[in-house]
Amino acid sequence: MSRAIGYAAQGADTPMTAFHFERRDLRPDDVAIDILYCGVCHSDLHQVRNDWKNTLYPSLPGHEIVGRVTAVGSDVGRFKPGQMVAVGCLVDSCMKCEPCCGGQEQYCSHFPTMTYNSKDRRDGQPTLGGYSDHIVVRDHFVLSLPDGLDPKRAAPLLCAGITTWAPLRRRKVGPGSRVAIAGLGGLGHMGVKLAAGLGADVTVLTTSPSKEADALALGAHRVLITKDKAAMKQATASFDLVLDTIPVAHDVKPYLHLLKVHGVHAIVGAIDVLPPVNSMLLVAWQRSLEGSMIGGIAETQELLDFCAEKNILPETETIDMQDINEAFERMLKSDVKYRFVIDMASLKREFPDDKSRISA
Amino acid sequence: MSRAIGYAAQGADTPMTAFHFERRDLRPDDVAIDILYCGVCHSDLHQVRNDWKNTLYPSLPGHEIVGRVTAVGSDVGRFKPGQMVAVGCLVDSCMKCEPCCGGQEQYCSHFPTMTYNSKDRRDGQPTLGGYSDHIVVRDHFVLSLPDGLDPKRAAPLLCAGITTWAPLRRRKVGPGSRVAIAGLGGLGHMGVKLAAGLGADVTVLTTSPSKEADALALGAHRVLITKDKAAMKQATASFDLVLDTIPVAHDVKPYLHLLKVHGVHAIVGAIDVLPPVNSMLLVAWQRSLEGSMIGGIAETQELLDFCAEKNILPETETIDMQDINEAFERMLKSDVKYRFVIDMASLKREFPDDKSRISA
Repeated sequence: MSRAIGYAAQGADTPMTAFHFERRDLRPDDVAIDILYCGVCHSDLHQVRNDWKNTLYPSLPGHEIVGRVTAVGSDVGRFKPGQMVAVGCLVDSCMKCEPCCGGQEQYCSHFPTMTYNSKDRRDGQPTLGGYSDHIVVRDHFVLSLPDGLDPKRAAPLLCAGITTWAPLRRRKVGPGSRVAIAGLGGLGHMGVKLAAGLGADVTVLTTSPSKEADALALGAHRVLITKDKAAMKQATASFDLVLDTIPVAHDVKPYLHLLKVHGVHAIVGAIDVLPPVNSMLLVAWQRSLEGSMIGGIAETQELLDFCAEKNILPETETIDMQDINEAFERMLKSDVKYRFVIDMASLKREFPDDKSRISA
Repeated sequence: MSRAIGYAAQGADTPMTAFHFERRDLRPDDVAIDILYCGVCHSDLHQVRNDWKNTLYPSLPGHEIVGRVTAVGSDVGRFKPGQMVAVGCLVDSCMKCEPCCGGQEQYCSHFPTMTYNSKDRRDGQPTLGGYSDHIVVRDHFVLSLPDGLDPKRAAPLLCAGITTWAPLRRRKVGPGSRVAIAGLGGLGHMGVKLAAGLGADVTVLTTSPSKEADALALGAHRVLITKDKAAMKQATASFDLVLDTIPVAHDVKPYLHLLKVHGVHAIVGAIDVLPPVNSMLLVAWQRSLEGSMIGGIAETQELLDFCAEKNILPETETIDMQDINEAFERMLKSDVKYRFVIDMASLKREFPDDKSRISA
């Protein structure tokens, strides 16, 4: 076991504070990683505040992890100490079911082991996430961070990036595709960058005209104001894909109207009861309403490689670990463009007398 | 113009009665067809009773047409007199838009011309359907009836058949696929036959155990009783495709649970407001809820060729044209296994003294 430190919540109503714990000894297929940066996802906040009524306390979130390998188990051939790596939402799965064998470990038939608030498949211990100085992860679930991808900004690719990448790729988005992105937060801003990077024509769907400048700066070709009835009517049946990153329950009907024949409305944000839909909107144009959850390990590696090649990076604001409670409050007010990333070097402050504890 | 006779309704509350009218002179790209058989679709009944509030009277329905070519226009090369042919729900489209160019004329961006209750694109005259002695149709929309496909039973392939065929093919159903068919009427029974013909493992989803024998006789491998909670739970995440032929609004949630990762729930029957769905059911397994409407012309020809090769035919009950009002009443009570087909030779009775009027 190795001593570790991170920031955790002890209950739904308590702030995040420094927390000492232990990481497991390396198994033959494990990789030990010093965490350099960790993105702050809305899920982190939901989890620590027990919004989903399933939180295991202490709750130590974080699933957008960038770091450096410090040690590997005896069977690990793909990684070596010193190498830059990344870890996303998954740290294990059965590796034998149909989804796992198809590279879709996130849909493991026996449920994947999540990076936090899960239980390790072998020892049953609760998993603790990336708001910490280091982590130990099964090799299959460790990604290579390509050279040229700025480690300080890459972290949000591991959740916000892959969540938007997977449906874009599944739909074979590329030159000639017309893609609309609904919602312009952590996920939506990555959707814009990735769809534009793939060569698609990109429209941001928003209620507020004030977001136009930001949307264009991110790479969108235009903004469609969803409250403008004439503009919405004009855009009827004009998109191949609506990537819906809106994080709360909402009516998808106005968006379904925008889809071309065979068009897909992909929900990646809202997990909630959606207002009823008339099936005519689907039947008469062979449209689909689909859901998508993060992505598989191979897809995630593909995304990292693509972003390195195209120099696509999330827009981030770097914070110290000690700023996390304030960052959560700002997230609730959508006061971030577009993702907080924690610089884990700030954890050194928790050990003013022991600089050796943080190797980064 | 040529004199024609059929059965039409003069208003929403009037019975179908003999109706004399004229078919247009042949245009260069037209095919004239003596109608031998015409299937009776639920849409026919909805239309003549003005259930959709858009009926043009006199209403002369019928879009499952099998017949013989009697004459062709000067530009028609593909057909000649004497040839057995078929016509489905479409008789024209713009032939220039993206869906038309992609062989999906049913989704024509400028709206296809339907076989009845539509307006001809060139002369603006109301279209009148297959409950008649002959019809004139643009050549592109005429199908070849393959040798070996019994003309007396083939008619329902033109609507019930293609409506279930298109989503099966789009999903690449074949050996190894697990398909569930919800609803066992005109559409559902074709869904079972076609999915089984494609080599899939086929389950019929039904509320009534009494349908088991029929389902197995049609080619299903088993029946899943949807009221049996234990059996439904056992079947969680086990189907690639649920083909939903239920003709009225219903809750799709119990069916969504049955879909595997990446599974598709295809609605082909109900055109109505569906009860709300929790997007979790879609997101956490990357499931889709899609709609599908009939099929394109090339797809329909593919279906006819497949059915001839595999000797797949709808289960039909042949009736006379004069029985149509009774047939409508029986359809409302689901008292048909599984599709009525009108033998148009019965129209001869409307002309006791002029046998030349019906050439078939």
